[in-house]
Amino acid sequence: MKNGSTLQLEIEKASTSKIDSVDFDNLVFGNIFTDHMMVCDYKNGEWRNPKVMPYGPLQLEPSARVFHYGQAVFEGMKAFKDDNGEVWLFRPQENFERLNKSSKRLAIPEFPTEVFFEGLEALLNLDREWIKQGFGNSLYIRPFVIATEAGVSASPAKEYKFLIICSPAKSYYSGEVRVVFAEKFSRAANGGVGFAKAAGNYGAQFYPTNLAKEEGFQQIIWTDANTHEYLEEAGTMNIFFRVGDKLLTAPTNDRILDGVTRKSVITLAEENDITVEVRRVSVKEIVDAAKKGDLKEIFGTGTAATINPVKGFGHDGEKFELEDQEDSYAQYFKTKLMEIQYNIAEDKFGWRYKVKK
Amino acid sequence: MKNGSTLQLEIEKASTSKIDSVDFDNLVFGNIFTDHMMVCDYKNGEWRNPKVMPYGPLQLEPSARVFHYGQAVFEGMKAFKDDNGEVWLFRPQENFERLNKSSKRLAIPEFPTEVFFEGLEALLNLDREWIKQGFGNSLYIRPFVIATEAGVSASPAKEYKFLIICSPAKSYYSGEVRVVFAEKFSRAANGGVGFAKAAGNYGAQFYPTNLAKEEGFQQIIWTDANTHEYLEEAGTMNIFFRVGDKLLTAPTNDRILDGVTRKSVITLAEENDITVEVRRVSVKEIVDAAKKGDLKEIFGTGTAATINPVKGFGHDGEKFELEDQEDSYAQYFKTKLMEIQYNIAEDKFGWRYKVKK
Ligand SMILES: Cc1ncc(COP(=O)(O)O)c(C=O)c1O
Ligand SMILES: Cc1ncc(COP(=O)(O)O)c(C=O)c1O
Repeated sequence: MKNGSTLQLEIEKASTSKIDSVDFDNLVFGNIFTDHMMVCDYKNGEWRNPKVMPYGPLQLEPSARVFHYGQAVFEGMKAFKDDNGEVWLFRPQENFERLNKSSKRLAIPEFPTEVFFEGLEALLNLDREWIKQGFGNSLYIRPFVIATEAGVSASPAKEYKFLIICSPAKSYYSGEVRVVFAEKFSRAANGGVGFAKAAGNYGAQFYPTNLAKEEGFQQIIWTDANTHEYLEEAGTMNIFFRVGDKLLTAPTNDRILDGVTRKSVITLAEENDITVEVRRVSVKEIVDAAKKGDLKEIFGTGTAATINPVKGFGHDGEKFELEDQEDSYAQYFKTKLMEIQYNIAEDKFGWRYKVKK
Repeated sequence: MKNGSTLQLEIEKASTSKIDSVDFDNLVFGNIFTDHMMVCDYKNGEWRNPKVMPYGPLQLEPSARVFHYGQAVFEGMKAFKDDNGEVWLFRPQENFERLNKSSKRLAIPEFPTEVFFEGLEALLNLDREWIKQGFGNSLYIRPFVIATEAGVSASPAKEYKFLIICSPAKSYYSGEVRVVFAEKFSRAANGGVGFAKAAGNYGAQFYPTNLAKEEGFQQIIWTDANTHEYLEEAGTMNIFFRVGDKLLTAPTNDRILDGVTRKSVITLAEENDITVEVRRVSVKEIVDAAKKGDLKEIFGTGTAATINPVKGFGHDGEKFELEDQEDSYAQYFKTKLMEIQYNIAEDKFGWRYKVKK
């Protein structure tokens, strides 16, 4: 993998830290970044000169491809600190592989594994103080790749920048979440880029989500673009429905992001004899179940929110509220996952990854 | 519209020009930019401080929304210089309105008309020397808007930058163009952002286009994402089919860009008693027509290429070649359009817009 010295990690420490100016009790998600970042450039057909360096602005040509053609992908992962001060990642290999899957679909060159993990760990070690102990505290990690080549012709860039930036986090959502099932707008096409964490997938959701907000819904559950009859996923979360004691969730396909939290919840459910049906979930059956009182819970799964319970939903002008469940699956999975993430519970499935000091 | 002095255009001239270093006979499309650019920032709920200034790099936070969520739209237009040295735009109001239509869909604040035209004209006048006389020479103009606000939360930015950059151009495509009809991948979903010039629409096409290139096709003609049975548009061009003496082109919808060149061609055709059927065009009818020898021409329409004749196409493993036509519609429309653009022919429809000196 190492090619001459071009993949040798360089480390430049920040001369000062801004950590003392940060109010860790009142963090807004994704607003404050740590003292360092990782960068690596792609040029002349290869990734070269990975570097962990002081966090700071980027300089790009106004014609850089990322501004014009959205050639950009990202990932979202978290680091957790246990009571002994050890730092843990959760299934990071999954995120790394998904980044490259996204890159491939966006015609971005794939990034080398070793450089990713070596840089990420060096970065986390430099910014270790930013990862606070305590259940719920974490460091949100954002790897991303952007096309930097100058020139406005609609073709893949020949130059890219890979970065990792980190932001201390409490929890993503505040307040109660109600969702509306999409009836007109869509998130992704068959044969499109919905399965990729491509930048353009997100900006495209803002306008419909604004409209939903005006109706009192914080999020949209996207349906298939053809018929709007099947429930797929939310903007940054996969979605589970609990009907009676069964869990339902859509299968992944080329429109749906294959979430790490989703697949972990499926594993945990199976381990605990909760039936999970991974199959197309129709709007009709969920509305019918809600009317009959069989719909017990809806929750979203994603790295930022872990598990996000949904309080109610809207469809076709009707609004439905969900009752709080004493034996909430959402709460159960959230605790289970967090206990693994914070090195409290046993790690049966080998999901934890210790960041070497 | 002028709000205090915040929408007063400021002009800062470049101290030197790079024009003498440019080889105008050997331009690569979109690679070289003129001495100036227009910029305007959106902050605290308003566009403010429009400025024409020396062309130069942008500084952005690594967490700027455009890098992560593809909140970015653009336009493409051209300026032409006639034999008297007057500079002309072609239907610029259409591009301006489409920019705002794209912005709206991407939850980007719309840009004020007067500021757009005042800034654009000031920019073109400063860089007037860059617009060369002669049929085929032009200045490609790229207005675009990017979300600049720092912070990785998946919600619309509150800060944006509007820019116009300009690049001297000859013609976009060199060489012969063959296309393949999409059978698996798609460009846009119903209820998605296909009708907008959203950055993410373009990066999403690069990978499938690379695969097409490996099969000997330079471009893809996208089909509807549901069935792949209907022909929609190409990556940066709308598409016309000439069957016998009739022209066929897909109607615009929420998946297809409403091209300025397309609508101009439809108008010119009608004026010249060429029948245009604006309706769904099936893959089957085009393949059948090709087999029967009725398919005379395929051509793309777009600002960059004007009219781009297609030499052949592929579908389902079969390849079809088109014969050159003596009475080529593509050639006819190209000449007609260019004569209007270069102020050679009468401007019956009021399409030309003179840039005031
Ligand atoms: C569209 C989408 N769906 C689902 C998810 C959840 O995926 P994960 O559990 O891997 O964070 C995310 C966020 O990462 C997302 O962006
Ligand atoms: C997707 C797409 N279709 C069609 C066109 C042609 O539109 P116009 O004729 O306005 O340039 C373009 C380019 O602007 C485009 O990007």
